[in-house]
Order: sequence, then C-alpha cells, then structure tokens
Amino acid sequence: MTLALCIDLPDWARSMEDSTRCFTDDTEKMRFAIDLSRRNVEAGSGGPFGAAIFERATGRLLSLGVNSVIRLQSSVLHAEMLAIMRAQHSLGSYTLHRPDLPVYELFSSCEPCAMCLGGILWSGVRRLVCAAPAASARAIGFDEGPVYPESYGYLENSGIEVVRGLLADEAHTVIADYRDRGGPIYNA
Amino acid sequence: MTLALCIDLPDWARSMEDSTRCFTDDTEKMRFAIDLSRRNVEAGSGGPFGAAIFERATGRLLSLGVNSVIRLQSSVLHAEMLAIMRAQHSLGSYTLHRPDLPVYELFSSCEPCAMCLGGILWSGVRRLVCAAPAASARAIGFDEGPVYPESYGYLENSGIEVVRGLLADEAHTVIADYRDRGGPIYNA
Repeated sequence: MTLALCIDLPDWARSMEDSTRCFTDDTEKMRFAIDLSRRNVEAGSGGPFGAAIFERATGRLLSLGVNSVIRLQSSVLHAEMLAIMRAQHSLGSYTLHRPDLPVYELFSSCEPCAMCLGGILWSGVRRLVCAAPAASARAIGFDEGPVYPESYGYLENSGIEVVRGLLADEAHTVIADYRDRGGPIYNA
Repeated sequence: MTLALCIDLPDWARSMEDSTRCFTDDTEKMRFAIDLSRRNVEAGSGGPFGAAIFERATGRLLSLGVNSVIRLQSSVLHAEMLAIMRAQHSLGSYTLHRPDLPVYELFSSCEPCAMCLGGILWSGVRRLVCAAPAASARAIGFDEGPVYPESYGYLENSGIEVVRGLLADEAHTVIADYRDRGGPIYNA
C-alpha cells in the first residue's frame, strides 16, 4: 500500500500563504490567525481554528494552517499541526530551531489541544501566542484532551515563550458562530 | 505555495503493511511493532520506534508506522502518528471509532510522547498497548514532553483501554542499541 496523503490548504487559503508578506506586531499576526479561522468557517472547509508561523525578527509569514480534520479526513490535521508540517516541509527541516535559521513563532486562534501542545514543543517554534481559551472550544463540545497548567510550564521550561488570551473575544466569536451555524463537532 | 507532503513508508516497510495478515494475540502484535522499531534502526531510516494498528476482533493489520522525523523532515511523524494518518487515509475516515467500522487497537513499541498521546485520543482507536516505558526513551536523550499519570487516566476515561509494559525489555533493547550505534537524538 502506498498512500499519498497530500497536506494541502483549502483553495481560498492558498493565496494567503504569501511568504513575502510581513506583519508588524502581535495584534496584526493574531488578527490574521483569527481571520483564517473565520474564513474556514465561512467556506465550510473545517473547524473554527486557524494558525500561522512567522519569522520573529521580521514578521514574515512562513506558513499557515486551518483545521482540516474533516476536509482531509485526518484527526491529526488541526490548524497548528498543518502550519507546523507545512513550515518544516518548506524549509526541509524537522525543526524550526536551528542556529542557521531565524527564530519562529506560532500564533493560534485558540489554545492548543494536548496533541498540538506536544507538537508545538517538537516543532522548534520559540514562542506560542494563543487567542481564545480552551474553554471556548470545550463550550461548544470540542474535547481538548489532557492539557494541564504544568503542560504550559513544560513548554516554558523548554525555552518557549507562551502568551495566552490575545484578542480572545474576537476568536471566541468565530467559535461561537461555528456552533450557531451547526458546524460538525468531531471527537466530541 | 502548494506542498505535496507524501506520508510514505521507508522502502523496507512497504511490503510489511500487508492488510491480509492476521495476528493471533497481543504478544505477536507487539513483536511486530518492536520488529518495526528494530528494522528502522538497522535500515537507518529513523528512530527506534514502531507502531501498528489492528482490527481488534480479527487481528488483521490495518496500518503501520515507524519513526520518520528525519527521513521525512517532520517533527510530527512519530511512529504512532504515521500509523494513525495512514490508517485513517486508507479508510477515508478521520476517526477509527465509527458504528460501521470494526474496533481498532494501536500497539506501540514505546509509551507515547505528549503529542502522540493526544493524537491517539483523537484517532478513534479503542485500545492502546505499549512496550518500553517512556523512561527508556528519556534515558537516551529523547524528550517525551508533558505526559502525566492523569494523561493516561484521561484516555481511560474516554473509553480507551491502556496496557503498558508488554515486552518492555525487548523494546528497550532496540532503543539502547540505537544509542550504542550513535543514532541521532532529535528534539533533545
């Protein structure tokens, strides 16, 4: 059996993964991640979650991800995992933390589930910025898995700066809108 | 940017993903997962970790995975994640837990890291059997991330049966052999 599993983006998102685009500050970067989550809901291409990876020093966009669990029929393909896999593939490196590479940071429209939190640890990003709390996802029926306060401490002890709650209300609105539209809740 | 990330197996493993093969008991299934880990080390195709997913009732093999972090330059591609992604892709389903599907179980040559433990929760397998303890991986420099006793409890509370320590010594020997050969320790 040879399985060619193509980790692609939905059509609408392809032109947005523009590696010449630079973002100026945390707010602009998070608005982009939340915009991805909103467009994913509006296009019906997946759950209400978006993520993007940026060069920290320049704000240049490296990769993006949107929840693609149902679209690509893979429980692994949360927004953060898609962004990480695409970033590493574009650089040809299993880690984004290498002396000859710039420093990278990941912005996510929602706090990561247990899988993504572990995945972020291995990815090599040196900063994680989240918007909506995990409680927003849980409130509409998504399970976030075994994430504990110590889980974030583990990331920080590994040298990853963690910022939570940036533009949380804007991201929460997208998640609540997904529920109101009757969006499917997988892994409930 | 369109990235075709092909989640394939190393050449030596392709013929082993034989979906006509049925296994009789836990020991035979785990020997297969450990054999995958050993062959991965001997072939130089990745870290000392193997995993396989079986139909619980019949013992039929559904998919397998070997650690492919360096081979495919992706920190996501631990053995368990590869097995999960290939299983779901072959069934065209983001979950292996569906009323019209048989019940599936995942065998791993080592206890899962934080990412894989979360990934197993979302995968839809209803049973997890592990061989070597996480301490075996940590002893040679691999980080396992934020996994706590409660993490396993979370899986069990979600209806996933967990068995740890089956053929632990055999699996540990492969991990120690990888160290003795000077195998690369990524994400250290």
